[in-house]
Amino acid sequence: MHKRPIGIFDSGLGGLTILKTLNQTLPRENLIYFGDTMNVPYGSKSKQTVTRFSLAIARFLEQQPVKLIVVACNTASALALPQLQKQISVPVLGVIEPGAQKAFEQTRNGKIAVLATEATVRSLSYKKALQKLNKKLSITQQACPVFVPLIEEGWLHPAAGEQIIADYLRPIIKSGADTVILGCTHYPVIKHRIARQLDKKVRLVDSAEAVAEKVKNYLIQNNLLNTAGRGKLTLYASDDPTRFKKLAKHIVGRELPRVQLKKLNP
Amino acid sequence: MHKRPIGIFDSGLGGLTILKTLNQTLPRENLIYFGDTMNVPYGSKSKQTVTRFSLAIARFLEQQPVKLIVVACNTASALALPQLQKQISVPVLGVIEPGAQKAFEQTRNGKIAVLATEATVRSLSYKKALQKLNKKLSITQQACPVFVPLIEEGWLHPAAGEQIIADYLRPIIKSGADTVILGCTHYPVIKHRIARQLDKKVRLVDSAEAVAEKVKNYLIQNNLLNTAGRGKLTLYASDDPTRFKKLAKHIVGRELPRVQLKKLNP
Repeated sequence: MHKRPIGIFDSGLGGLTILKTLNQTLPRENLIYFGDTMNVPYGSKSKQTVTRFSLAIARFLEQQPVKLIVVACNTASALALPQLQKQISVPVLGVIEPGAQKAFEQTRNGKIAVLATEATVRSLSYKKALQKLNKKLSITQQACPVFVPLIEEGWLHPAAGEQIIADYLRPIIKSGADTVILGCTHYPVIKHRIARQLDKKVRLVDSAEAVAEKVKNYLIQNNLLNTAGRGKLTLYASDDPTRFKKLAKHIVGRELPRVQLKKLNP
Repeated sequence: MHKRPIGIFDSGLGGLTILKTLNQTLPRENLIYFGDTMNVPYGSKSKQTVTRFSLAIARFLEQQPVKLIVVACNTASALALPQLQKQISVPVLGVIEPGAQKAFEQTRNGKIAVLATEATVRSLSYKKALQKLNKKLSITQQACPVFVPLIEEGWLHPAAGEQIIADYLRPIIKSGADTVILGCTHYPVIKHRIARQLDKKVRLVDSAEAVAEKVKNYLIQNNLLNTAGRGKLTLYASDDPTRFKKLAKHIVGRELPRVQLKKLNP
Protein backbone atom coordinates (compact mmCIF):
# COMPACT_ATOMS: atom_id res chain seq x y z
CA MET A 1 0.00 0.00 0.00
CA HIS A 2 2.72 2.53 0.97
CA LYS A 3 4.40 2.08 -2.43
CA ARG A 4 1.29 3.28 -4.22
CA PRO A 5 1.61 6.70 -5.80
CA ILE A 6 -0.08 9.91 -4.68
CA GLY A 7 -2.50 11.27 -7.29
CA ILE A 8 -2.50 15.02 -7.97
CA PHE A 9 -4.77 16.86 -10.36
CA ASP A 10 -5.47 20.32 -11.67
CA SER A 11 -7.34 21.99 -14.54
CA GLY A 12 -4.05 22.41 -16.35
CA LEU A 13 -0.55 23.44 -15.38
CA GLY A 14 -1.09 25.30 -12.10
CA GLY A 15 -1.05 22.20 -9.91
CA LEU A 16 2.53 21.57 -10.97
CA THR A 17 3.51 24.12 -8.31
CA ILE A 18 2.10 21.60 -5.79
CA LEU A 19 3.77 18.65 -7.55
CA LYS A 20 7.13 20.40 -7.34
CA THR A 21 6.84 21.10 -3.60
CA LEU A 22 5.49 17.61 -2.84
CA ASN A 23 8.43 16.11 -4.72
CA GLN A 24 10.88 18.27 -2.73
CA THR A 25 9.23 17.49 0.63
CA LEU A 26 8.64 13.78 -0.04
CA PRO A 27 11.27 12.76 -2.61
CA ARG A 28 10.62 9.05 -2.15
CA GLU A 29 6.94 9.22 -3.05
CA ASN A 30 5.72 8.16 -6.48
CA LEU A 31 3.53 10.91 -7.93
CA ILE A 32 0.93 10.81 -10.70
CA TYR A 33 -0.15 14.18 -12.06
CA PHE A 34 -3.21 14.77 -14.24
CA GLY A 35 -3.60 18.14 -16.01
CA ASP A 36 -7.07 18.57 -17.52
CA THR A 37 -5.90 20.63 -20.50
CA MET A 38 -8.93 19.52 -22.53
CA ASN A 39 -11.21 21.41 -20.15
CA VAL A 40 -8.99 24.19 -18.82
CA PRO A 41 -9.87 26.71 -17.37
CA TYR A 42 -12.12 25.76 -14.43
CA GLY A 43 -12.27 29.14 -12.71
CA SER A 44 -15.02 30.65 -14.87
CA LYS A 45 -17.17 27.50 -14.96
CA SER A 46 -20.07 26.32 -12.78
CA LYS A 47 -19.99 24.10 -9.69
CA GLN A 48 -21.82 21.31 -11.53
CA THR A 49 -19.38 21.33 -14.46
CA VAL A 50 -16.24 21.55 -12.31
CA THR A 51 -17.55 18.68 -10.13
CA ARG A 52 -18.19 16.58 -13.25
CA PHE A 53 -14.65 17.15 -14.57
CA SER A 54 -13.10 16.53 -11.12
CA LEU A 55 -14.98 13.28 -10.52
CA ALA A 56 -13.86 11.83 -13.86
CA ILE A 57 -10.23 12.56 -13.02
CA ALA A 58 -10.46 11.33 -9.43
CA ARG A 59 -11.99 8.05 -10.67
CA PHE A 60 -9.12 7.62 -13.11
CA LEU A 61 -6.56 8.21 -10.34
CA GLU A 62 -8.44 5.90 -7.95
CA GLN A 63 -8.07 3.09 -10.51
CA GLN A 64 -4.27 3.43 -10.85
CA PRO A 65 -4.54 2.78 -7.82
CA VAL A 66 -3.28 5.71 -5.72
CA LYS A 67 -3.13 5.84 -1.91
CA LEU A 68 -4.25 9.48 -1.69
CA ILE A 69 -5.54 12.22 -4.00
CA VAL A 70 -4.51 15.87 -3.75
CA VAL A 71 -6.85 18.31 -5.48
CA ALA A 72 -4.11 20.70 -6.58
CA CYS A 73 -6.64 23.22 -7.86
CA ASN A 74 -8.36 25.78 -5.67
CA THR A 75 -11.46 25.97 -7.86
CA ALA A 76 -11.97 22.19 -7.76
CA SER A 77 -11.24 22.18 -4.00
CA ALA A 78 -13.76 24.98 -3.46
CA LEU A 79 -16.54 23.48 -5.61
CA ALA A 80 -16.08 19.71 -5.72
CA LEU A 81 -14.28 18.51 -2.58
CA PRO A 82 -17.35 17.24 -0.63
CA GLN A 83 -18.57 15.26 -3.67
CA LEU A 84 -15.10 13.81 -4.24
CA GLN A 85 -14.76 12.79 -0.61
CA LYS A 86 -18.19 11.13 -0.79
CA GLN A 87 -17.70 9.24 -4.05
CA ILE A 88 -14.02 8.32 -4.09
CA SER A 89 -12.71 5.42 -2.01
CA VAL A 90 -9.28 6.88 -1.19
CA PRO A 91 -8.72 9.98 0.96
CA VAL A 92 -8.99 13.29 -0.95
CA LEU A 93 -7.22 16.41 0.32
CA GLY A 94 -7.92 19.94 -0.94
CA VAL A 95 -5.72 23.02 -0.92
CA ILE A 96 -8.00 25.58 0.72
CA GLU A 97 -7.88 24.61 4.40
CA PRO A 98 -4.08 24.31 4.55
CA GLY A 99 -3.73 27.71 2.83
CA ALA A 100 -6.23 29.36 5.19
CA GLN A 101 -4.49 27.84 8.22
CA LYS A 102 -1.11 29.15 7.09
CA ALA A 103 -2.49 32.65 6.44
CA PHE A 104 -4.08 32.67 9.89
CA GLU A 105 -0.72 31.78 11.47
CA GLN A 106 1.07 34.53 9.57
CA THR A 107 -1.19 37.55 9.92
CA ARG A 108 -0.34 40.10 12.62
CA ASN A 109 -3.10 42.64 12.00
CA GLY A 110 -5.92 40.17 11.30
CA LYS A 111 -6.41 41.50 7.78
CA ILE A 112 -6.14 38.79 5.15
CA ALA A 113 -6.69 39.09 1.39
CA VAL A 114 -7.45 36.29 -1.06
CA LEU A 115 -6.57 36.35 -4.76
CA ALA A 116 -8.50 33.58 -6.54
CA THR A 117 -10.60 32.63 -9.56
CA GLU A 118 -14.14 33.90 -10.01
CA ALA A 119 -15.59 30.51 -9.00
CA THR A 120 -13.45 30.22 -5.85
CA VAL A 121 -14.36 33.77 -4.80
CA ARG A 122 -18.06 33.10 -5.42
CA SER A 123 -17.90 29.90 -3.32
CA LEU A 124 -16.64 31.92 -0.30
CA SER A 125 -14.54 28.85 0.62
CA TYR A 126 -11.54 30.80 1.87
CA LYS A 127 -13.75 33.21 3.78
CA LYS A 128 -15.54 30.33 5.50
CA ALA A 129 -12.30 28.45 6.25
CA LEU A 130 -10.73 31.61 7.74
CA GLN A 131 -13.78 32.56 9.78
CA LYS A 132 -13.81 29.06 11.24
CA LEU A 133 -10.34 29.84 12.61
CA ASN A 134 -11.29 33.29 13.93
CA LYS A 135 -14.53 35.14 13.36
CA LYS A 136 -12.91 38.54 13.81
CA LEU A 137 -10.57 38.29 10.82
CA SER A 138 -11.13 40.95 8.16
CA ILE A 139 -11.14 39.26 4.75
CA THR A 140 -10.93 40.87 1.30
CA GLN A 141 -11.52 38.67 -1.73
CA GLN A 142 -10.39 39.59 -5.25
CA ALA A 143 -11.26 37.55 -8.35
CA CYS A 144 -8.44 37.55 -10.94
CA PRO A 145 -10.10 35.96 -13.98
CA VAL A 146 -7.37 36.61 -16.51
CA PHE A 147 -4.37 35.34 -14.51
CA VAL A 148 -4.95 31.67 -15.41
CA PRO A 149 -5.26 32.21 -19.19
CA LEU A 150 -2.21 34.50 -19.16
CA ILE A 151 -0.16 31.95 -17.19
CA GLU A 152 -1.39 28.97 -19.26
CA GLU A 153 -0.24 30.88 -22.37
CA GLY A 154 3.23 31.39 -20.86
CA TRP A 155 2.86 35.00 -19.55
CA LEU A 156 3.76 36.31 -22.99
CA HIS A 157 2.95 39.96 -22.30
CA PRO A 158 4.92 41.02 -19.21
CA ALA A 159 4.22 44.77 -19.45
CA ALA A 160 0.48 44.25 -19.86
CA GLY A 161 0.65 41.63 -17.12
CA GLU A 162 2.10 44.17 -14.65
CA GLN A 163 -0.87 46.47 -15.30
CA ILE A 164 -3.35 43.66 -14.78
CA ILE A 165 -1.64 42.74 -11.50
CA ALA A 166 -1.89 46.40 -10.43
CA ASP A 167 -5.63 46.42 -11.26
CA TYR A 168 -6.24 43.36 -9.10
CA LEU A 169 -4.06 44.52 -6.20
CA ARG A 170 -5.68 47.97 -5.82
CA PRO A 171 -8.49 46.85 -3.46
CA ILE A 172 -6.06 44.55 -1.60
CA ILE A 173 -3.63 47.40 -0.90
CA LYS A 174 -6.56 49.62 0.15
CA SER A 175 -7.74 46.95 2.61
CA GLY A 176 -4.49 47.12 4.57
CA ALA A 177 -4.07 43.34 4.49
CA ASP A 178 -0.68 42.14 5.76
CA THR A 179 -1.20 38.61 4.40
CA VAL A 180 -2.26 37.71 0.86
CA ILE A 181 -3.33 34.17 -0.03
CA LEU A 182 -2.42 33.07 -3.55
CA GLY A 183 -5.73 31.22 -3.81
CA CYS A 184 -5.08 29.48 -7.10
CA THR A 185 -2.24 27.05 -7.75
CA HIS A 186 -1.34 28.95 -10.92
CA TYR A 187 -0.49 32.16 -9.08
CA PRO A 188 2.83 31.08 -7.52
CA VAL A 189 4.17 31.14 -11.10
CA ILE A 190 3.92 34.97 -10.94
CA LYS A 191 4.56 35.26 -7.18
CA HIS A 192 7.62 37.51 -7.56
CA ARG A 193 5.67 39.81 -9.91
CA ILE A 194 2.84 40.13 -7.38
CA ALA A 195 5.27 40.65 -4.46
CA ARG A 196 7.04 43.45 -6.34
CA GLN A 197 3.84 45.53 -6.33
CA LEU A 198 3.11 45.07 -2.62
CA ASP A 199 4.70 46.55 0.51
CA LYS A 200 7.70 44.49 1.60
CA LYS A 201 6.01 43.65 4.90
CA VAL A 202 3.09 41.90 3.19
CA ARG A 203 3.40 38.12 3.30
CA LEU A 204 2.29 36.01 0.37
CA VAL A 205 0.83 32.62 1.24
CA ASP A 206 1.38 29.92 -1.33
CA SER A 207 -0.53 26.84 -0.19
CA ALA A 208 1.96 24.39 -1.76
CA GLU A 209 4.12 24.10 1.37
CA ALA A 210 1.12 23.86 3.68
CA VAL A 211 -0.35 21.12 1.48
CA ALA A 212 2.94 19.22 1.38
CA GLU A 213 3.13 19.33 5.20
CA LYS A 214 -0.44 18.07 5.46
CA VAL A 215 0.24 15.20 3.06
CA LYS A 216 3.42 14.27 4.96
CA ASN A 217 1.58 14.22 8.30
CA TYR A 218 -1.23 12.17 6.84
CA LEU A 219 1.19 9.57 5.44
CA ILE A 220 3.13 9.34 8.72
CA GLN A 221 0.00 9.02 10.84
CA ASN A 222 -1.41 6.31 8.59
CA ASN A 223 1.86 4.47 8.19
CA LEU A 224 1.80 5.07 4.44
CA LEU A 225 5.14 6.80 3.91
CA ASN A 226 7.30 5.36 1.16
CA THR A 227 10.64 4.91 2.86
CA ALA A 228 12.93 3.54 0.17
CA GLY A 229 13.99 4.43 -3.35
CA ARG A 230 13.50 7.60 -5.38
CA GLY A 231 9.96 8.60 -6.29
CA LYS A 232 8.82 8.27 -9.87
CA LEU A 233 6.84 11.02 -11.64
CA THR A 234 4.10 10.10 -14.08
CA LEU A 235 2.36 12.86 -16.01
CA TYR A 236 -0.95 12.80 -17.86
CA ALA A 237 -2.73 15.53 -19.82
CA SER A 238 -6.21 15.27 -21.36
CA ASP A 239 -5.10 17.20 -24.48
CA ASP A 240 -1.98 18.05 -26.46
CA PRO A 241 0.95 16.65 -24.36
CA THR A 242 3.56 18.55 -26.44
CA ARG A 243 2.25 21.94 -25.48
CA PHE A 244 1.76 20.82 -21.86
CA LYS A 245 5.31 19.54 -21.58
CA LYS A 246 6.83 22.74 -22.95
CA LEU A 247 5.05 24.93 -20.39
CA ALA A 248 5.36 22.37 -17.56
CA LYS A 249 9.14 22.37 -17.82
CA HIS A 250 9.05 26.15 -17.40
CA ILE A 251 6.94 25.85 -14.21
CA VAL A 252 8.74 22.93 -12.56
CA GLY A 253 12.15 24.26 -13.58
CA ARG A 254 13.61 20.99 -14.81
CA GLU A 255 13.30 18.25 -17.42
CA LEU A 256 10.16 16.13 -16.95
CA PRO A 257 9.25 12.61 -18.03
CA ARG A 258 7.11 12.04 -21.11
CA VAL A 259 3.57 13.42 -20.77
CA GLN A 260 0.94 10.83 -21.68
CA LEU A 261 -2.32 11.74 -23.41
CA LYS A 262 -5.33 10.45 -21.49
CA LYS A 263 -8.83 11.43 -22.61
CA LEU A 264 -11.61 10.97 -20.08
CA ASN A 265 -15.38 11.04 -20.51
CA PRO A 266 -16.60 13.45 -17.88
CA MET B 1 -38.23 22.66 -44.50
CA HIS B 2 -37.69 26.39 -45.13
CA LYS B 3 -39.20 27.20 -41.71
CA ARG B 4 -36.51 25.15 -39.96
CA PRO B 5 -33.96 27.22 -38.05
CA ILE B 6 -30.32 27.75 -38.96
CA GLY B 7 -27.94 26.30 -36.35
CA ILE B 8 -24.91 28.35 -35.34
CA PHE B 9 -22.22 27.32 -32.90
CA ASP B 10 -19.06 28.58 -31.31
CA SER B 11 -16.74 27.71 -28.41
CA GLY B 12 -18.35 30.48 -26.40
CA LEU B 13 -19.47 34.02 -27.08
CA GLY B 14 -17.49 34.93 -30.21
CA GLY B 15 -19.95 33.42 -32.68
CA LEU B 16 -22.56 35.90 -31.49
CA THR B 17 -20.90 38.40 -33.85
CA ILE B 18 -22.04 36.04 -36.65
CA LEU B 19 -25.49 35.56 -35.10
CA LYS B 20 -25.96 39.34 -34.97
CA THR B 21 -25.06 39.85 -38.65
CA LEU B 22 -27.12 36.84 -39.79
CA ASN B 23 -30.11 38.23 -37.91
CA GLN B 24 -29.64 41.64 -39.57
CA THR B 25 -29.18 40.17 -43.08
CA LEU B 26 -31.91 37.54 -42.77
CA PRO B 27 -34.38 38.88 -40.18
CA ARG B 28 -37.04 36.28 -41.04
CA GLU B 29 -34.82 33.27 -40.30
CA ASN B 30 -35.15 31.34 -37.05
CA LEU B 31 -31.71 30.98 -35.46
CA ILE B 32 -30.44 28.52 -32.84
CA TYR B 33 -27.14 29.43 -31.22
CA PHE B 34 -25.01 27.04 -29.17
CA GLY B 35 -22.10 28.46 -27.10
CA ASP B 36 -19.83 25.72 -25.73
CA THR B 37 -18.96 27.58 -22.52
CA MET B 38 -18.24 24.29 -20.75
CA ASN B 39 -15.27 23.69 -23.05
CA VAL B 40 -14.20 27.21 -24.00
CA PRO B 41 -11.57 28.06 -25.26
CA TYR B 42 -10.93 25.93 -28.38
CA GLY B 43 -7.99 27.90 -29.79
CA SER B 44 -5.28 26.30 -27.66
CA LYS B 45 -6.63 22.74 -27.96
CA SER B 46 -5.84 19.90 -30.37
CA LYS B 47 -7.56 19.00 -33.64
CA GLN B 48 -8.89 15.76 -32.16
CA THR B 49 -10.39 17.49 -29.13
CA VAL B 50 -11.92 20.38 -31.08
CA THR B 51 -13.42 17.89 -33.57
CA ARG B 52 -14.91 15.89 -30.71
CA PHE B 53 -16.54 18.99 -29.16
CA SER B 54 -17.77 20.23 -32.58
CA LEU B 55 -19.34 16.90 -33.56
CA ALA B 56 -21.31 16.69 -30.31
CA ILE B 57 -22.76 20.16 -30.90
CA ALA B 58 -23.47 19.61 -34.60
CA ARG B 59 -25.33 16.39 -33.75
CA PHE B 60 -27.44 18.26 -31.21
CA LEU B 61 -28.28 20.96 -33.80
CA GLU B 62 -28.99 18.33 -36.48
CA GLN B 63 -31.63 16.81 -34.18
CA GLN B 64 -33.54 20.08 -33.63
CA PRO B 65 -33.75 19.76 -36.72
CA VAL B 66 -31.99 22.65 -38.47
CA LYS B 67 -31.78 23.20 -42.24
CA LEU B 68 -28.15 24.36 -42.18
CA ILE B 69 -25.27 24.64 -39.69
CA VAL B 70 -22.87 27.58 -39.55
CA VAL B 71 -19.63 26.87 -37.71
CA ALA B 72 -19.27 30.37 -36.27
CA CYS B 73 -15.84 29.59 -34.88
CA ASN B 74 -12.66 29.84 -36.91
CA THR B 75 -10.83 27.21 -34.86
CA ALA B 76 -13.61 24.66 -35.34
CA SER B 77 -13.86 25.61 -39.03
CA ALA B 78 -10.11 25.17 -39.43
CA LEU B 79 -9.86 21.86 -37.59
CA ALA B 80 -13.22 20.08 -37.79
CA LEU B 81 -15.08 21.17 -40.96
CA PRO B 82 -14.27 18.12 -43.14
CA GLN B 83 -15.34 15.72 -40.36
CA LEU B 84 -18.54 17.69 -39.75
CA GLN B 85 -19.40 17.73 -43.45
CA LYS B 86 -18.80 13.97 -43.60
CA GLN B 87 -20.78 12.99 -40.51
CA ILE B 88 -23.65 15.48 -40.37
CA SER B 89 -26.68 15.10 -42.64
CA VAL B 90 -27.40 18.83 -43.15
CA PRO B 91 -25.07 21.23 -44.98
CA VAL B 92 -22.29 22.69 -42.79
CA LEU B 93 -20.69 26.04 -43.67
CA GLY B 94 -17.45 27.33 -42.16
CA VAL B 95 -16.18 30.89 -41.76
CA ILE B 96 -12.71 30.61 -43.27
CA GLU B 97 -13.40 30.49 -47.01
CA PRO B 98 -15.81 33.47 -47.01
CA GLY B 99 -13.31 35.51 -44.98
CA ALA B 100 -10.41 34.61 -47.29
CA GLN B 101 -12.52 35.47 -50.35
CA LYS B 102 -13.44 38.87 -48.94
CA ALA B 103 -9.81 39.67 -48.04
CA PHE B 104 -8.70 38.69 -51.54
CA GLU B 105 -11.28 41.08 -53.04
CA GLN B 106 -10.15 43.93 -50.78
CA THR B 107 -6.36 43.82 -50.98
CA ARG B 108 -4.64 46.19 -53.40
CA ASN B 109 -0.99 45.34 -52.68
CA GLY B 110 -1.43 41.55 -52.36
CA LYS B 111 -0.24 41.58 -48.74
CA ILE B 112 -2.73 40.03 -46.36
CA ALA B 113 -2.36 39.41 -42.63
CA VAL B 114 -4.33 36.98 -40.49
CA LEU B 115 -4.96 37.37 -36.76
CA ALA B 116 -6.22 34.07 -35.33
CA THR B 117 -5.95 31.52 -32.51
CA GLU B 118 -2.90 29.30 -32.13
CA ALA B 119 -4.79 26.30 -33.52
CA THR B 120 -6.10 28.18 -36.58
CA VAL B 121 -2.63 29.54 -37.34
CA ARG B 122 -1.08 26.07 -36.98
CA SER B 123 -3.69 24.58 -39.34
CA LEU B 124 -2.63 27.03 -42.11
CA SER B 125 -6.29 27.10 -43.19
CA TYR B 126 -6.36 30.79 -44.12
CA LYS B 127 -3.02 30.52 -45.90
CA LYS B 128 -4.27 27.58 -47.96
CA ALA B 129 -7.62 29.24 -48.73
CA LEU B 130 -5.88 32.45 -49.83
CA GLN B 131 -3.26 30.67 -51.93
CA LYS B 132 -6.05 28.80 -53.71
CA LEU B 133 -7.32 32.22 -54.84
CA ASN B 134 -3.88 33.51 -55.87
CA LYS B 135 -0.52 31.83 -55.29
CA LYS B 136 1.34 35.14 -55.33
CA LEU B 137 -0.35 36.64 -52.26
CA SER B 138 2.03 37.44 -49.41
CA ILE B 139 0.49 36.16 -46.17
CA THR B 140 1.52 36.94 -42.57
CA GLN B 141 -0.09 34.93 -39.78
CA GLN B 142 -0.17 36.03 -36.15
CA ALA B 143 -1.48 33.89 -33.30
CA CYS B 144 -3.21 35.95 -30.59
CA PRO B 145 -3.70 33.40 -27.77
CA VAL B 146 -4.86 35.78 -25.06
CA PHE B 147 -7.52 37.70 -27.03
CA VAL B 148 -10.24 35.06 -26.51
CA PRO B 149 -9.79 34.77 -22.72
CA LEU B 150 -9.66 38.56 -22.39
CA ILE B 151 -12.83 38.98 -24.48
CA GLU B 152 -14.64 36.09 -22.75
CA GLU B 153 -13.88 37.83 -19.44
CA GLY B 154 -15.38 41.10 -20.72
CA TRP B 155 -12.16 42.97 -21.70
CA LEU B 156 -11.77 44.14 -18.11
CA HIS B 157 -8.29 45.62 -18.53
CA PRO B 158 -8.40 48.11 -21.40
CA ALA B 159 -4.95 49.64 -20.86
CA ALA B 160 -3.24 46.24 -20.67
CA GLY B 161 -5.36 45.16 -23.63
CA GLU B 162 -3.99 48.00 -25.77
CA GLN B 163 -0.44 46.81 -25.06
CA ILE B 164 -1.30 43.23 -25.95
CA ILE B 165 -2.89 44.40 -29.22
CA ALA B 166 0.30 46.37 -29.96
CA ASP B 167 2.44 43.26 -29.33
CA TYR B 168 0.38 41.20 -31.78
CA LEU B 169 0.22 43.92 -34.45
CA ARG B 170 3.97 44.59 -34.58
CA PRO B 171 4.78 41.86 -37.19
CA ILE B 172 1.61 42.72 -39.12
CA ILE B 173 2.58 46.40 -39.44
CA LYS B 174 6.12 45.36 -40.42
CA SER B 175 4.74 43.11 -43.17
CA GLY B 176 3.10 46.06 -44.96
CA ALA B 177 -0.23 44.23 -45.20
CA ASP B 178 -3.09 46.45 -46.40
CA THR B 179 -5.74 43.90 -45.39
CA VAL B 180 -6.05 42.19 -42.01
CA ILE B 181 -8.38 39.24 -41.50
CA LEU B 182 -9.97 39.02 -38.04
CA GLY B 183 -9.59 35.25 -38.13
CA CYS B 184 -11.56 34.49 -34.98
CA THR B 185 -15.20 35.37 -34.42
CA HIS B 186 -14.31 36.90 -31.05
CA TYR B 187 -12.07 39.57 -32.53
CA PRO B 188 -14.78 41.82 -34.04
CA VAL B 189 -15.68 42.63 -30.41
CA ILE B 190 -12.39 44.61 -30.23
CA LYS B 191 -12.34 45.64 -33.92
CA HIS B 192 -12.26 49.39 -33.17
CA ARG B 193 -9.38 48.89 -30.72
CA ILE B 194 -7.39 46.99 -33.36
CA ALA B 195 -8.21 49.53 -36.09
CA ARG B 196 -7.02 52.41 -33.88
CA GLN B 197 -3.48 50.95 -33.85
CA LEU B 198 -3.26 50.44 -37.62
CA ASP B 199 -2.79 52.86 -40.52
CA LYS B 200 -6.16 54.25 -41.65
CA LYS B 201 -5.71 52.70 -45.09
CA VAL B 202 -5.56 49.16 -43.69
CA ARG B 203 -8.82 47.29 -44.12
CA LEU B 204 -10.07 44.91 -41.46
CA VAL B 205 -11.97 41.88 -42.71
CA ASP B 206 -14.62 40.56 -40.37
CA SER B 207 -15.99 37.36 -41.87
CA ALA B 208 -19.49 37.86 -40.42
CA GLU B 209 -20.82 39.77 -43.45
CA ALA B 210 -19.19 37.39 -45.92
CA VAL B 211 -20.70 34.43 -44.06
CA ALA B 212 -24.15 36.06 -43.97
CA GLU B 213 -23.98 36.62 -47.75
CA LYS B 214 -22.95 33.01 -48.30
CA VAL B 215 -25.80 31.72 -46.14
CA LYS B 216 -28.29 33.98 -47.97
CA ASN B 217 -27.13 32.75 -51.38
CA TYR B 218 -27.27 29.15 -50.26
CA LEU B 219 -30.84 29.54 -48.99
CA ILE B 220 -31.98 31.30 -52.18
CA GLN B 221 -30.35 28.74 -54.46
CA ASN B 222 -31.87 25.86 -52.55
CA ASN B 223 -35.27 27.46 -52.16
CA LEU B 224 -34.92 27.41 -48.38
CA LEU B 225 -35.43 31.08 -47.54
CA ASN B 226 -37.98 31.76 -44.84
CA THR B 227 -40.18 34.43 -46.42
CA ALA B 228 -42.72 35.27 -43.71
CA GLY B 229 -42.77 36.33 -40.09
CA ARG B 230 -40.02 37.51 -37.81
CA GLY B 231 -37.19 35.08 -36.99
CA LYS B 232 -36.98 33.63 -33.50
CA LEU B 233 -33.69 33.41 -31.59
CA THR B 234 -32.99 30.40 -29.38
CA LEU B 235 -29.83 30.36 -27.29
CA TYR B 236 -28.07 27.43 -25.60
CA ALA B 237 -24.92 27.35 -23.50
CA SER B 238 -23.22 24.22 -22.17
CA ASP B 239 -22.41 25.94 -18.85
CA ASP B 240 -23.60 28.80 -16.65
CA PRO B 241 -26.31 30.59 -18.71
CA THR B 242 -26.36 33.60 -16.35
CA ARG B 243 -22.78 34.54 -17.06
CA PHE B 244 -23.23 33.81 -20.77
CA LYS B 245 -26.30 36.02 -21.01
CA LYS B 246 -24.63 38.96 -19.28
CA LEU B 247 -21.68 38.98 -21.70
CA ALA B 248 -23.82 38.05 -24.72
CA LYS B 249 -26.00 41.12 -24.30
CA HIS B 250 -22.84 43.22 -24.37
CA ILE B 251 -21.72 41.63 -27.68
CA VAL B 252 -25.07 41.59 -29.49
CA GLY B 253 -25.97 45.03 -28.19
CA ARG B 254 -29.55 44.28 -27.20
CA GLU B 255 -31.74 42.24 -24.86
CA LEU B 256 -31.64 38.52 -25.69
CA PRO B 257 -34.05 35.68 -24.99
CA ARG B 258 -33.45 33.31 -22.07
CA VAL B 259 -30.29 31.22 -22.46
CA GLN B 260 -30.95 27.53 -21.91
CA LEU B 261 -28.42 25.21 -20.27
CA LYS B 262 -27.66 22.20 -22.44
CA LYS B 263 -24.91 19.79 -21.41
CA LEU B 264 -23.58 17.48 -24.10
CA ASN B 265 -21.41 14.38 -23.85
CA PRO B 266 -18.61 14.97 -26.31
